[in-house]
Order: sequence, then C-alpha cells, then structure tokens
Amino acid sequence: MAEKQDVAVLGATGSVGQRYIQLLEGHPNFQLSEVVGSERSAGKSYNEAADWRLSDAPPTRVSNMILKHPEEPVHSPIVFCSLPGGVARETELKLASEGHYVFSNARDNRMDDDVPLMIPEVNSDHSKAIQVQQKNRGFAKGFVVTNPNCSTIHLVLALKPIWDAFGIEQCMVTTMQAVSGAGYPGVPSLDMIDNVVPYIGDEEEKMEIETRKLLGSFNGNAFQYADIQMSAQCNRVPVRHGHLETVNVKLRKQAGPEEVVEALRSFRGRPQELGLPSAPEAPIIVRDQPDRPQPALDRDAANGMASVVGRVRECPIFGIKFVVLGHNTIRGAAGASILNAEMLMADGYMG
Amino acid sequence: MAEKQDVAVLGATGSVGQRYIQLLEGHPNFQLSEVVGSERSAGKSYNEAADWRLSDAPPTRVSNMILKHPEEPVHSPIVFCSLPGGVARETELKLASEGHYVFSNARDNRMDDDVPLMIPEVNSDHSKAIQVQQKNRGFAKGFVVTNPNCSTIHLVLALKPIWDAFGIEQCMVTTMQAVSGAGYPGVPSLDMIDNVVPYIGDEEEKMEIETRKLLGSFNGNAFQYADIQMSAQCNRVPVRHGHLETVNVKLRKQAGPEEVVEALRSFRGRPQELGLPSAPEAPIIVRDQPDRPQPALDRDAANGMASVVGRVRECPIFGIKFVVLGHNTIRGAAGASILNAEMLMADGYMG
Amino acid sequence: MAEKQDVAVLGATGSVGQRYIQLLEGHPNFQLSEVVGSERSAGKSYNEAADWRLSDAPPTRVSNMILKHPEEPVHSPIVFCSLPGGVARETELKLASEGHYVFSNARDNRMDDDVPLMIPEVNSDHSKAIQVQQKNRGFAKGFVVTNPNCSTIHLVLALKPIWDAFGIEQCMVTTMQAVSGAGYPGVPSLDMIDNVVPYIGDEEEKMEIETRKLLGSFNGNAFQYADIQMSAQCNRVPVRHGHLETVNVKLRKQAGPEEVVEALRSFRGRPQELGLPSAPEAPIIVRDQPDRPQPALDRDAANGMASVVGRVRECPIFGIKFVVLGHNTIRGAAGASILNAEMLMADGYMG
Amino acid sequence: MAEKQDVAVLGATGSVGQRYIQLLEGHPNFQLSEVVGSERSAGKSYNEAADWRLSDAPPTRVSNMILKHPEEPVHSPIVFCSLPGGVARETELKLASEGHYVFSNARDNRMDDDVPLMIPEVNSDHSKAIQVQQKNRGFAKGFVVTNPNCSTIHLVLALKPIWDAFGIEQCMVTTMQAVSGAGYPGVPSLDMIDNVVPYIGDEEEKMEIETRKLLGSFNGNAFQYADIQMSAQCNRVPVRHGHLETVNVKLRKQAGPEEVVEALRSFRGRPQELGLPSAPEAPIIVRDQPDRPQPALDRDAANGMASVVGRVRECPIFGIKFVVLGHNTIRGAAGASILNAEMLMADGYMG
Repeated sequence: MAEKQDVAVLGATGSVGQRYIQLLEGHPNFQLSEVVGSERSAGKSYNEAADWRLSDAPPTRVSNMILKHPEEPVHSPIVFCSLPGGVARETELKLASEGHYVFSNARDNRMDDDVPLMIPEVNSDHSKAIQVQQKNRGFAKGFVVTNPNCSTIHLVLALKPIWDAFGIEQCMVTTMQAVSGAGYPGVPSLDMIDNVVPYIGDEEEKMEIETRKLLGSFNGNAFQYADIQMSAQCNRVPVRHGHLETVNVKLRKQAGPEEVVEALRSFRGRPQELGLPSAPEAPIIVRDQPDRPQPALDRDAANGMASVVGRVRECPIFGIKFVVLGHNTIRGAAGASILNAEMLMADGYMG
Repeated sequence: MAEKQDVAVLGATGSVGQRYIQLLEGHPNFQLSEVVGSERSAGKSYNEAADWRLSDAPPTRVSNMILKHPEEPVHSPIVFCSLPGGVARETELKLASEGHYVFSNARDNRMDDDVPLMIPEVNSDHSKAIQVQQKNRGFAKGFVVTNPNCSTIHLVLALKPIWDAFGIEQCMVTTMQAVSGAGYPGVPSLDMIDNVVPYIGDEEEKMEIETRKLLGSFNGNAFQYADIQMSAQCNRVPVRHGHLETVNVKLRKQAGPEEVVEALRSFRGRPQELGLPSAPEAPIIVRDQPDRPQPALDRDAANGMASVVGRVRECPIFGIKFVVLGHNTIRGAAGASILNAEMLMADGYMG
Repeated sequence: MAEKQDVAVLGATGSVGQRYIQLLEGHPNFQLSEVVGSERSAGKSYNEAADWRLSDAPPTRVSNMILKHPEEPVHSPIVFCSLPGGVARETELKLASEGHYVFSNARDNRMDDDVPLMIPEVNSDHSKAIQVQQKNRGFAKGFVVTNPNCSTIHLVLALKPIWDAFGIEQCMVTTMQAVSGAGYPGVPSLDMIDNVVPYIGDEEEKMEIETRKLLGSFNGNAFQYADIQMSAQCNRVPVRHGHLETVNVKLRKQAGPEEVVEALRSFRGRPQELGLPSAPEAPIIVRDQPDRPQPALDRDAANGMASVVGRVRECPIFGIKFVVLGHNTIRGAAGASILNAEMLMADGYMG
Repeated sequence: MAEKQDVAVLGATGSVGQRYIQLLEGHPNFQLSEVVGSERSAGKSYNEAADWRLSDAPPTRVSNMILKHPEEPVHSPIVFCSLPGGVARETELKLASEGHYVFSNARDNRMDDDVPLMIPEVNSDHSKAIQVQQKNRGFAKGFVVTNPNCSTIHLVLALKPIWDAFGIEQCMVTTMQAVSGAGYPGVPSLDMIDNVVPYIGDEEEKMEIETRKLLGSFNGNAFQYADIQMSAQCNRVPVRHGHLETVNVKLRKQAGPEEVVEALRSFRGRPQELGLPSAPEAPIIVRDQPDRPQPALDRDAANGMASVVGRVRECPIFGIKFVVLGHNTIRGAAGASILNAEMLMADGYMG
C-alpha cells in the first residue's frame, strides 16, 4: 500500500465529524483531502466554521482547509459520512452511484436489505452484500457500508463471543449514555447537571433491531436476522464520552462466568487477523476489579477502540449478567467507520 | 393525640440523621427531644458537630441541642436510628429491650425472622410480627421495626400494585443511584465527575432479598418470602438525591401498559386510609411525558414521599418495562421510618 | 388590599417565565390571569407548550391556561416580562403606553435615562423617575420598571450596606454563574460536564455599568451614576441554580471585617419596612462557616430571596474581600420583578 | 547521557504519585526503580495497593513492583516526593542528608530560606541556593528542591513574562480548581455535584506568598521576595483536572493587551533553551477564541505541560485582566518536579 487513498469527510464540523478529523490525522492508509460542511459553513475555513469540542485544537493542516458546499462534487474515492439521520440517505446513495466508497455513521441506510451493517470483528462476511447492492442499484463500483449505533456496537462486540460459544436466547440491556452521543449543542446542561434523563429517542428500537441484523447471517441474497430476543432501556447520564451498559443474557448452552470471561478475552476477529491499523490488539478487555469499567477510567483503553467488560457474574434469572463500556464517538462512531474502511480496503473491495 | 411523643434520633449528625432532623421539624405527632451522636461528637452542640449538607441550616432549636454519648441513657419512648450497618444491631436490640419503640434505617436487623421490614403501603400487616419478636426476645413493650434499603423501597412501591393485580414471576432492575445514599463524605468526587461507577457493595443482594420479604406474608409465626425471581444491577451516578431504576417485569397474568398504569395510579395503602401526616396523597405518581421521571425534576414530588413512575410500555421479553424514581433519603430512608412510626402509633402499637 | 390584581406573564414558557408562574402561585396580591407565549406556542395549553424544568409540574390551574399570541391584546393591568433581550424593548414600551404597569427582567430598557433599574432595598427612590418617563413618553399611567441582571443583583445587594457605611472606591468581582441563567436549552452539556467556560457574552459590561446606575441617585430629572470603579470577570460553572461571586472592595473609609459583617447583617430596606409579601426578613444573610455560601446549600435561603455572604476578610490589596451567592432566577430575576411590583403597589404607583 | 538514572517515587500510590508513575514511563533520562508507599501498603504490589484513578491502568512493569516501607532505605539517587504536607519535611531532609537529590511536591520545605522553590522557566537561577543549603545543613551532595502549589505554578508562569516586560505592582486572582488537586478520596461528591465550594484550606496564603518567592531573586545568600501585592480567592469546582484562574494585574509600565499577548507568546525559558524532554515548545499558549481556555478542552495542551492563557483585555481598574488555565497534576505537580530534575541534571547539579 504505497500510496495513501484520498478521503472526504461529510458533516465534518459536527461532533462525529471532528472525531473523523482527529482519527484520520497521521493515518497510514488514508489522507484527508476534502471536508464537506453545510450550506451555512461552506466556503469558510475549517477552523472558523467548526466549534471544535475535542481536546486542544484541530490539526493545523485541517484548520486551513476550506469547507465544501454539500452540493459540490467530491473527488476522493473514499467518503466518511456523519450527516444527521434523515439527511444522509440520498446523499450517500448518490455518492455511491458516482463510484465512491461510502462509510456511513448515519442511521438512514443501516437497515436496508442490501446494505451491510458492519462491525469488522462481528460480521465481516456481510461485506458480500455489497455485490447485491451494486447489482440492485446499478452501482458500477461504489457502495454504502454502515456501522451501527454507538450503543449497539459495544453491546454486540461483547455479545459476539458469547453468541459464538454458547448461543444467546434473550438479552436485556440498560444503557447509561454519554452526552457526546447527541452531538453539539445536543443535550442541554440543565438536563444533565444533577440529573439523568431516562429517554433517548428511537435508541431502544435501534439497539433491539440492529443487534439482530449484526448477529445474523448473509445468505448470498439477503440478511437473516438472528434469533435473539432483545429488550433495551436507554438513559442519558452526565458523562462526556463513554456509554456504559448493564447486560443480562440467557444462554442457549449453560456456562459460568469464568467460561464467559474466557470467551471474551480470547476473542479475536478479522481486523486482528489482518493487523489493521486501527484494530485494537484485543477487541474486548475484561477488567477484574469489582467496580470497573468506568467511563472516566476505561473509555480510552486501546485508544478508544476496545469494548471494556467487567463484573461478569451469575444472574439469578438469565444465568449471566455483566457490564460493558465503550467510547461512543471513537469505536462507537468515527473509529467504527474507519475500521470498516481499513478492512474492505485490505479485502480488495476498493479497487 | 393531644400531646406529642418525645423522640430521639441516633446517628443524628449523619446524612440520614440530618433528614430525620429536617422532617421531624414541626411534626404534628413527634417532638425531637434527644440527639445522639458518636463518641467523638458527644457533648458538642448539634450545630458544631454536624456537617449539615441539606439546604440552608438545621432548625435553630436543634442547632443548640447537645449531642448525647452513644452510651448515655435515652429517655424518649420513640427512637429513630440511622447508625451505620454493622454497628446498629446491638444498640437497637438493647433499646427495644429497655422498652423503646425503635424504627431503624440500618440493615442489621432487617432480615431477622421476627423483625418487620416494612413499607406501610406494602405490608402493614407484617407489624403482627412484633408480638412474636417481643415474646422471642423477652421485650416487655419495646420493639425494632425496620425499613428497607433506599433503592428497594421505590422498586417495591412500584411493584406492589402490579403484584396485587397481575402477579409477578420475574423482575430485573438496573439502578442509577444518587450519591447521598452513600452518606457524607461518601463517594469521592473524582469517582463522580464525568463518570458512573457500576458497583455498590452489597446493594444488589439487598434488593434481591428484601423485595422477597416485603412482598411476602407473615403467617402469624414466620415470614413467607414471596415467590419472585429477582436480578439487580446497581450503579452510582453523579446525582445528589433521587434513585432512578429501569425495571422489567414478567407478569403472571397478562396485562398491557394501560392496565398497569391504572393499577399504579389507583394504588392506595394503609397510610392513605389513616390519613397519616407524612403520607402522600397517592404513593405512586405516574408521569405521562416520555422523558420522565428525572431525578432533578421529580424527586421532590409529594415532598419526596412518593415514587414516580414513567415510560410504562411493552417489553419484548418480559411483557412490561418501566422506569421508577424516588427520593432516597426521604421516602428511601428517614421518611420511611417516620411513616412506619406514624402508622404503628395510629394502630395502637405504641402504648 | 381586598382584591388581587390581575397579572400577565410575557415569555411565560421560558426559564424565567416558569419562575414567574411558580412564584405567583398563591401570591396574596397578584392573580395570574394571562400567559403570553411566542408565535409558535400561541393557542396551546401552557402544559403542552412549556418544557417545564422546575421541580414537579406547573400548578394545575396554569397548566390548562391557553397561551396568548404575542400580538393579542393584554387585559391585566400588571405585566411581568421575561422576553429575550433584543425583543423586549418595543413590546414593553407599547404595553406601558397602553396603561400597563410593566415589570421587566429584560435588558433592553434597563439603561434608559428615564427607566428605573431597581432593587427595592437598594434604590427604591429611583421610582421617582416614573413620572419623568410618563411625561417624556406621553404615558397616561403605565410605565416600565426593570430589574438588573441576575449576577448584578446579588453583588449590589451585598455592596449597598458597605457603600452606605464606608463608601466604595473600587470593586473587582469574579462570578461563577449557574446554567439556568442562560435559559433552556441554554448551555450545552458538553460545555458543562467536567468544565468551566470563562466567558458569558456581555455579562461583564452589564455588571460594570448596572452597578453604577443602581448605586447612583435620581435627582428629579436624571440618574447620577455612582462614582465607583468596577471590573468583572464572568464564568459559567456546572451548577443548576445560584450565582457565586468573589468580591474585592476598596473602601473610602477604613473598616475591618467585623464592621462590614455588622453592616451587612443589620441592613434592611423598604421591602422589610413595608413587610412586602416576597421580602426576606433580612436581605443579606451572613454565614460564619469558612466554606459557605455554596450554591447547593444556600441558594434557597429565605426562599431564594436573600443574598448570602461569607468569608468576609481582609484583602491585602483592597482592604476587604468576601464571597456572595444568590439564586439567579428567584431574587436574580422573577422574584426581583415581583418584589418591585409589590413595592410600587404599596407605594401607590399602581392606581 | 548514555544511561538512565534510577529514581524512586515516595507517596507512589497517591494522586500525584500516580502521575509521577505515568509521566516517568518511557522517560529518556529517568528509570523508575523504587516505589515507596505507606506503612499500610508496604509489601504489596503496586497494582494491589494503588487505587489507580488515571485512565486505563498503571504500566505493567510498575504494576508488579513491590511497595517499600517508608523506613526502608532508598537506593535511587533521585527521589520524587509527593508525601502529604506535614509528613514530608523530615523525610525529605533525611534523604537529602543521605546524598539523594530530592524533588518535592510537598509544601513543607517550600518556604525555607535555603530551599529553592522553582519553576524552571521562571527562576532557574534559584538553583544557586542549593550550595547554601548543602553548607547550612551539612549535606555532602544531596539537596531538596521544591515546586510550588498547583495553582501558583500556572499563575506565575503567566505572570513572569509580564513581570519581565512591564513590571507588576498588584495582582488579584480568583481560582476555580479541579478536584484532583485534593487527592483521592479528596473532595466528597456531595460537595461537587451542582455545587462550588468557595474555600480551600491555606491555598490563598500559599498563592500569595509563593508568588513572591518565585518572582524574587537569590542574592547568593538569601532569597529576596518580589515586591508585588497579591490577593487570592480560591474555589473548588466540579472539574476533574485543570485549574482555571481569573487574573487582574496592575503593571508598573503601561501596556495594552496586544503587548501583553506578545510578551506571553514569545516567552521561552531555560527548559526550552536546553531542550529538556518534558519541556513544552512554548510554556505559554495564548488562545484567541473568546471563550477559552476551558479545562476540558485545554488542560492537555502540550501534554499538560503548558499554561494556557486567554481573554487578555483591559481591566478598568488595574489595566490588564486575563484568564489562565493549567493541568494541576501534570505541570502543576508531578510534571513540575520532573522538569526541575531534568534541568538540574542538565545543569550538572546531580553528580
């Protein structure tokens, strides 16, 4: 891979857009060449338009880049998209039809019958749906590949090794989600100081259905959704980054906490096999301390690309319960897209 | 009830002790006459010894009261006890043996075979165990009555009407608990700023077992624990007061969300029947807004004596799920004891 | 005062509007008769339109009131206005010209030459400017009276007794302001979790100039601004309610901390003289503990109508330094307007 | 510098101790060889004894190191000390008398007449006092060098270029300090959720006196304290890391904000000259945005080793006011000591 591929970021000034910028800085395969903004920000420098809410400041090179108008043509073959849900669908499909490889963090195309919803360690073989998509939609070479919702990703990363080893019949999850998941300005501070909001619009539905697509299979023509019953309750808590989730699972084949921990710790996926640049050494880190994982202490483990599990123990009702935490805008959003792109590049999907 | 009864508060300077002081101010039946501190605080004025962490300042009259040594004799017939778990057992039993009516917020005696663990709206008939206790232990007229853990109370208040109307086979709960539940100094701020701690020592076990005693029955000789499977996951969140809990329940008799809401809203118990001074008009308030209850907005509903339920909806696995919130140091601790005392006084247990 | 006067609230669904609603409930002199919303909320019930962010829920009677369109005629003689700055000027003047007594919390008319900027305990005699205003503007009987910015009010309440007793040459102040001062949605939570923002637009300028008008005099024709040098630095901190300020003052006549405390504690103003319904017994409470006042513990002192001072001590540069805290939406906004109205009613300005 | 010098950390499990461990990992000059704990933790592995509150986990190599007893002999020539104030004095002097180079973060020896209180960019020439110290105390080659209080360091870094360029007559400062400055468990969360505490014991006195020693000179025999009047007000705010300070300065020679910014931006010190490993490229970063610096966004600038200044503007009273922020446990504590050690090593003070 002698030369870096040019990439564009859509929705570049938003919360997830900023993470793309940060994670792409110094990336060995990708070179950020275009930043696309909104009608309002187009024509301004990135520095001027973006209300940078990550640590320090945007990379100098990017600061001076001029934001493109959403309707201007994009030249980069690879496009990372963090447009808001509701706006993304048409843009992404148009770019794919023009031959771009579109990696989307938006919800709009996730549940489509011919669009892979991918976590590289979980269902890398869903990439086979790309051919169907291209055929269905008449795309010469472009495609749209999506990553799941930020709270789904970490749940499913933790479920996958258990699913493979023991099977899962039912899964209940309660989330405590960070505010950066709602973007900026996002959640008002009056809702988050000395408070918890027990509601995030559409989040529970997304977790329940996306999990079934992710753990399901692609049979060459269509996705078979996994046979697992899901129930989610989603809450917003006063945390900057890092979604924490309590999980109860009913296994198909009985197993104790030690066996589950062993399955989690030994889990590796295609990104680890391929040694992809953004792949964590192990996708799942299991903490032994009784009071971990915690957002402030564990969200940056493996540069925010791992899911951190703790408190694996017996559940009097379902058999097993545990806690999982992960960084919601790194592995839960921008980093997820980038890892998808790294894998599909390595697997020859991009020219 | 012409005259007020004298009451003493043990552990008067602590977090729950301060709530007792606050709630007893101006109480129509009870008159705070003695405050008992620790070896270290004995002999000091309340104002000097107590690191008052409630709004404003302690009532002037109490400010000037001198804290008694834990070994000094107590004169008041009624004793409210908020000694730490592990320390309370002997003190409470000794006071009862001396003829005091002891209402305890400590965990030590809760699970004893002849000690009522009471929520007045839930299991007022458990007071019948007092006679057994007095006989067993040779108490002439004193007794120990306990209230549950702060997170259990609000869960069980919400479960009770459902239990009565439809039966409950299984219940899963995830809590998001306020820091005042851990006392003062309690939880370090480095653990609570931008963070959640997914662990509270012994809390899950308490919720699982106390619920079964509370929903059980007293057969004249012994408590029959309720036949309900429980699984709890407990978290500490950066909230001052108010425990929020997500709950999933599997009913024995099928019912939809509207029927459950109706059962919750129409629920009344013995305190409402008796018109007790601290009794909320309705023990359970159901919010209609999709994002309620929230600790900052709902914990003070009905002066902190009600449980506030919201988001009653279908659960794909268990049938029903909802959210419940309640004030952890009012209805969840000091107010719970006081309501127990009001009821037993009205029911003639105290002379 | 046999009958209550009808009052209207403009901007009734906003953050300060909600406080007006809350404080007017059960008011002995005023009866809330009209709630005026925005173009968007007009025609809806209050309950439906207002995103109520105060504890519990709006009073039932108000919940069902229908919001008027901003252009509909207002019938109540008294109008409380919490329209946003920039929007309020014309509306307030028009209402005054129609004969309404307008009490405004907006900044637009505060600095006008014939508009009283009033804190009842500080400059009640500025009400004399009303006659000039009516003459200048041709108002038959209506008028506009304003209250200061939320951070200015508590500063000036604390400065006034010192000003009277010793004179003040210079005053430096650094504020740590609560988020409710910015309304709802107001400050994004990503700016307030684990963070402080050292900037609030225009706030420093307001504090510096309003203080000089408030401590100044009205000579029958015009306001004489006080001869005091002011310098403010304003910060937003993760606190729901309650502005805390560190203050350094250079006195004209030397005085030690004890004398200053004595002046603060003995301070009373016209509201105390008149025994107005919303008047605190003493406008300034001085705490003796070294670590008070604190927002969470002291903002509700005297129902949020007092300023709470602490740590009065020597300043190596200016002579005296101290800390002051006050509730920003009660005494700092809605309660300030209501107290102004109570006083002008008692003083015969309203019919 | 072919070989790394062995270093020991005293108070290794505490809040600042953990930072030492983190910053020494991979250090080019220093090799962590000994960790010294308390009587209670001695003999345990670091991992077992330390309640690690920094991100992720301690370096593996350190995790397995066994904590020494405070009375065991220390072998490493260089000792970093983060013992609590009150305990540190004797230990540090004893170690120096045994020939160790002691770099202390404790307050105990800071104000001694022959102990340098150093910030390398500010008063590197104070190292000359080491000879006096060795002579006075009969130390053959060891010494004690201290760094200032965490809030003083960032203030004085920002004052120094202004002091040099224009002179400073008076300086007022109000701090908003992070909780990690109080160690762990440190500040209770009930004091920090929805709250600010306007008091930190002895902090104001430290800031006022340390600043004068730091900006003063060493005349070969004794320290001459700087002729500057100081007044500090210190507050604790709900922030994990990063002290923010509002500053007003009265210059001796008039200068406008642009000149001050220029002085701050162009400032370099001996660490920059020597190219020390932990030295930031520029010790002071000036932000142009009106709402910066902010703890969450700016504390990690230059790896936490820079002070970040913003809002340099005119003060109506003193002439200049601004805001400064810095990481309190990196440049404000452990990093400060390490930079002192790097400089004295480069300057030949350590063998």
